[in-house]
Amino acid sequence: MVKLVVSYGAPEDPAAFEQHYSNTHVPLVEKIPNLRRFEAGKILGTPDGSPAPVFFLAELWFDSPQELEAAMGSAEGQAAGADVANFATGGATLMIAEA
Amino acid sequence: MVKLVVSYGAPEDPAAFEQHYSNTHVPLVEKIPNLRRFEAGKILGTPDGSPAPVFFLAELWFDSPQELEAAMGSAEGQAAGADVANFATGGATLMIAEA
Repeated sequence: MVKLVVSYGAPEDPAAFEQHYSNTHVPLVEKIPNLRRFEAGKILGTPDGSPAPVFFLAELWFDSPQELEAAMGSAEGQAAGADVANFATGGATLMIAEA
Repeated sequence: MVKLVVSYGAPEDPAAFEQHYSNTHVPLVEKIPNLRRFEAGKILGTPDGSPAPVFFLAELWFDSPQELEAAMGSAEGQAAGADVANFATGGATLMIAEA
């Protein structure tokens, strides 16, 4: 399997970020075809108490790189991707990882 | 649930990193008490082809922050943590995330 990892930087308004994420973004992600597992949540801290470089982390699992690519190219994938600009005021870093 | 996210920067010798990770580090991680799920793998790239800021990502899931804390404080958790210095020549960032 592979996963799309989305690492969000600290937004200008954390409460607005979380509200938009839950109410608008999650429903869009859940429509993405081929999606096998979805997990998203806040970074709670670091083991040594130092500041975390990430605010929120999301991961989308797919069976293969081909299925991930097809998912991102689909209308549903494009809609979810386009929505990121609506709330990720602290930036979003996307990576594809072995899973 | 919560997860410990370990984000490794690019090491000096990627082949040596992967060999140590598979042969030495994974067996240490698998001994950690309370561990519910473990996933680790290379970053394969980014959707837009830009350089990925991370080389390798590992995640360890636990049922609660308390179980994660107990796991990290155990002899097995300390042994796995201490081993990171043996191969993470590009650094390692640890974060605790909602899961």
